[in-house]
Amino acid sequence: MDCLIEPNGSYQMIGSDFLNLDPATAPPRGRTAWLTQQLRTAITDGTLAPGTRLPASRVLAGELSVARGTVVEAYRRLGEEGLLVTNHGGGTEVAALAATSASLPNPEPDEPTPKELLNISAGVPDLSGFPRAAWLRAERRVLTTATAAELGYADPQGTPRLRTALANWLARSRGITAGPEQIIVTAGVTGALSLLAQVLRDQGITDCAIEDPGADGNRRILDYWLDTLHPIPVDSAGLDVTALARTDARAVLVTPAHQFPTGVVLAPDRRRELLAWAEARGGLVVEDDYDSEYRYDRTPVRALHAAAPERVVHISSLSKVLAPALRIGWMIAPTDLHDDLVRKRWATDLGSPALPQLALADLIDSGTLERHLRSLRLRHRERRDAAVAAIRRYLLGCRIEGVAAGLHLLVRLPEHVDDTMLAARAEEAGFAVQPLSAHRISPGPPGLIIGYGPHPPPRLEAALQTLGAIGRFTPA
Amino acid sequence: MDCLIEPNGSYQMIGSDFLNLDPATAPPRGRTAWLTQQLRTAITDGTLAPGTRLPASRVLAGELSVARGTVVEAYRRLGEEGLLVTNHGGGTEVAALAATSASLPNPEPDEPTPKELLNISAGVPDLSGFPRAAWLRAERRVLTTATAAELGYADPQGTPRLRTALANWLARSRGITAGPEQIIVTAGVTGALSLLAQVLRDQGITDCAIEDPGADGNRRILDYWLDTLHPIPVDSAGLDVTALARTDARAVLVTPAHQFPTGVVLAPDRRRELLAWAEARGGLVVEDDYDSEYRYDRTPVRALHAAAPERVVHISSLSKVLAPALRIGWMIAPTDLHDDLVRKRWATDLGSPALPQLALADLIDSGTLERHLRSLRLRHRERRDAAVAAIRRYLLGCRIEGVAAGLHLLVRLPEHVDDTMLAARAEEAGFAVQPLSAHRISPGPPGLIIGYGPHPPPRLEAALQTLGAIGRFTPA
Repeated sequence: MDCLIEPNGSYQMIGSDFLNLDPATAPPRGRTAWLTQQLRTAITDGTLAPGTRLPASRVLAGELSVARGTVVEAYRRLGEEGLLVTNHGGGTEVAALAATSASLPNPEPDEPTPKELLNISAGVPDLSGFPRAAWLRAERRVLTTATAAELGYADPQGTPRLRTALANWLARSRGITAGPEQIIVTAGVTGALSLLAQVLRDQGITDCAIEDPGADGNRRILDYWLDTLHPIPVDSAGLDVTALARTDARAVLVTPAHQFPTGVVLAPDRRRELLAWAEARGGLVVEDDYDSEYRYDRTPVRALHAAAPERVVHISSLSKVLAPALRIGWMIAPTDLHDDLVRKRWATDLGSPALPQLALADLIDSGTLERHLRSLRLRHRERRDAAVAAIRRYLLGCRIEGVAAGLHLLVRLPEHVDDTMLAARAEEAGFAVQPLSAHRISPGPPGLIIGYGPHPPPRLEAALQTLGAIGRFTPA
Repeated sequence: MDCLIEPNGSYQMIGSDFLNLDPATAPPRGRTAWLTQQLRTAITDGTLAPGTRLPASRVLAGELSVARGTVVEAYRRLGEEGLLVTNHGGGTEVAALAATSASLPNPEPDEPTPKELLNISAGVPDLSGFPRAAWLRAERRVLTTATAAELGYADPQGTPRLRTALANWLARSRGITAGPEQIIVTAGVTGALSLLAQVLRDQGITDCAIEDPGADGNRRILDYWLDTLHPIPVDSAGLDVTALARTDARAVLVTPAHQFPTGVVLAPDRRRELLAWAEARGGLVVEDDYDSEYRYDRTPVRALHAAAPERVVHISSLSKVLAPALRIGWMIAPTDLHDDLVRKRWATDLGSPALPQLALADLIDSGTLERHLRSLRLRHRERRDAAVAAIRRYLLGCRIEGVAAGLHLLVRLPEHVDDTMLAARAEEAGFAVQPLSAHRISPGPPGLIIGYGPHPPPRLEAALQTLGAIGRFTPA
């Protein structure tokens, strides 16, 4: 039990008994959610006054007989909600404005219930970290200031306010020099890909080259709209441009900053080769910049678009920073495609809903998105480190590929392992993991894609330990 | 000046001088906005205490030398914001919770500045009446309760919560018996039309019949996706089904509840003929139910879909009740089209953003939307009445067509008038009005479409008076 000083100078003992915390009432698989909720209630109903210092995580974990990681994670979540802060001495205390602030408690949705799979497969961010309060504040500002015209039929290309915000954001973060008039707001990366595929098809281009392995979701979208896809091998330097040049393709979809799923970066000479191919062939390079916000060891490579704006269609979204559910992405296309793309968007649905666009513009302009991204980067890096450590410990004989970036990593398995079978066995054991084969067109060496974004380190470690046992990678 | 009793029982004199209202500071063309803002500030900063009775509109208008309508409209807007209420005696007073409520002041965007056109052309609702506070409360509830999964990639068909809410709503309001599994959430009516046109085209159906006159916006969308459109005449009983049957068309887009732009209702025998045509031809009737929420004289006719769910695609949206900017609509299609439509939506953009869908479901389930609609219906009916009166007064020799419904009315002009020229002259005089010719394919008698939704009666009257003078319909 900690002995601490309240803001008014009196001493107060605080610990699990003070909070009436009874670990026996905690559900067996939702202890983090339970503890977070108990503490949140105590803070918001005033039981824990502003300035009250909480026990060290080790101490509270001991008293409650829960893992220390459970307490750490509960403190982290409440910190994000603005209810807890770290004080000068490194301790955790109730924020000064916690009780009266308009903080929005996040529910605890990401703790899998016994019936659900623990999903370590998808390259999604920690959605429990979606900045709900900040988003709501932005919506409020938007709704207070939006004109009636802004609630009417909007610009199919996207609201000017968001396009301006994105132009600045992309200039800062990706080295892209495109004015707001060149940016097309899309319904996520899929919305951009589908528009582009349709416009290409209208021009008589019915095929496209894609990376192999590559994102299966994008492959399925292109496969819906086009007749032929040419799989192009990917090696440790990224797309094999020589193999691309042997096909008839006049368009290619690539992930140069962080190849999905291998995690490699397109090497400088390959970048040059690729742009030379586009120049010589009159071809189009479609750059899916899906997770470039997450580079943990250095500044991400510049967008390919910056080097050849008339040969490259740049596509990205904030699905990996905020939430896929927002369905907001963008596209910057060569001049000769721009008008057809905007017209296709108009004919499809008149453009994206205005309110979320305006709220996002507000988040960017106010610097909130940048701050949120910094905090996400730290958290995801910590999770990546934990996943890497657990893989080295429990998946012996396996190899991690790719750079320190993104929300997933690729584990290369020993040659004899059937990754699809292994994923099926993992599913029986209660968690979902994607086999590399699911993202391949031509057969190739086995692997597993580990999406660490949504999971705190203890959960990742537990999942990977189980995976090691299932795959018999861990020595008994 | 009124003499009134404060809640504490003391008397207080209140009037324009008490409020320090100086009409000289009001902008010449934005007096309603100015007055609303002055009163709002006085209420929210406590100058006007809860329970304080305001002067009668006639009195305040006299003191300020403004039109009485200006005061009435300011009171109305503040009433909608929850800042003013009508007391037992019919007077207006400051709401009890006004000062402390979380009311969200609507800005005053719909008063045209001298440089802007007064737009009486579009069939849009009063967007200054968008229930901003209610929407924000719904968003807050959604963000407090949404699971992480709900922030991830959603169901392309629409979130189950919204589809369930819509199924109940459509059963109550339109007599439609379709389960949530049959409803497809779309990006407004345009999103539905474009999906449908594409799926028909995939099936080899490249033409469609449309009403003439009919909504030009829909015509342009269909024209983008299909090869041939067959214009079918509309008379006072609606679509001429005999003329439809003479074409090769296997699909027809109609507005049975309130034809756009003529305002007529499809007559009972025409409904039967149309469904018989569909049955005999194996044809598809596309029912655009765009404004059926607004019928002022009686209950709207049942949706056509209710009579023949396997022959009718029902399409609608809440653009006319909430705001076009939401881009949320829905579609219910015959069984054999359903899967292709959902798959097309998946391939287009993976479906609509989740948050607005969940917020809308909340508004429906809580009854907020129903209440909002009741208030809109009253307001729009009042505006329609004002427009009708002004047309009878200032547009002599012209005739109003259609039933008391919707957000627009059609004025038939004397045969010799060129409606396009008249609209052009009106634009020079500072307001936008649509000529009937703009919604025609084949030539026909002239008319003007008057969208009264966004405009308070005094503004409508002034606009129509000007129009009467421009068209020389008003005797000098």
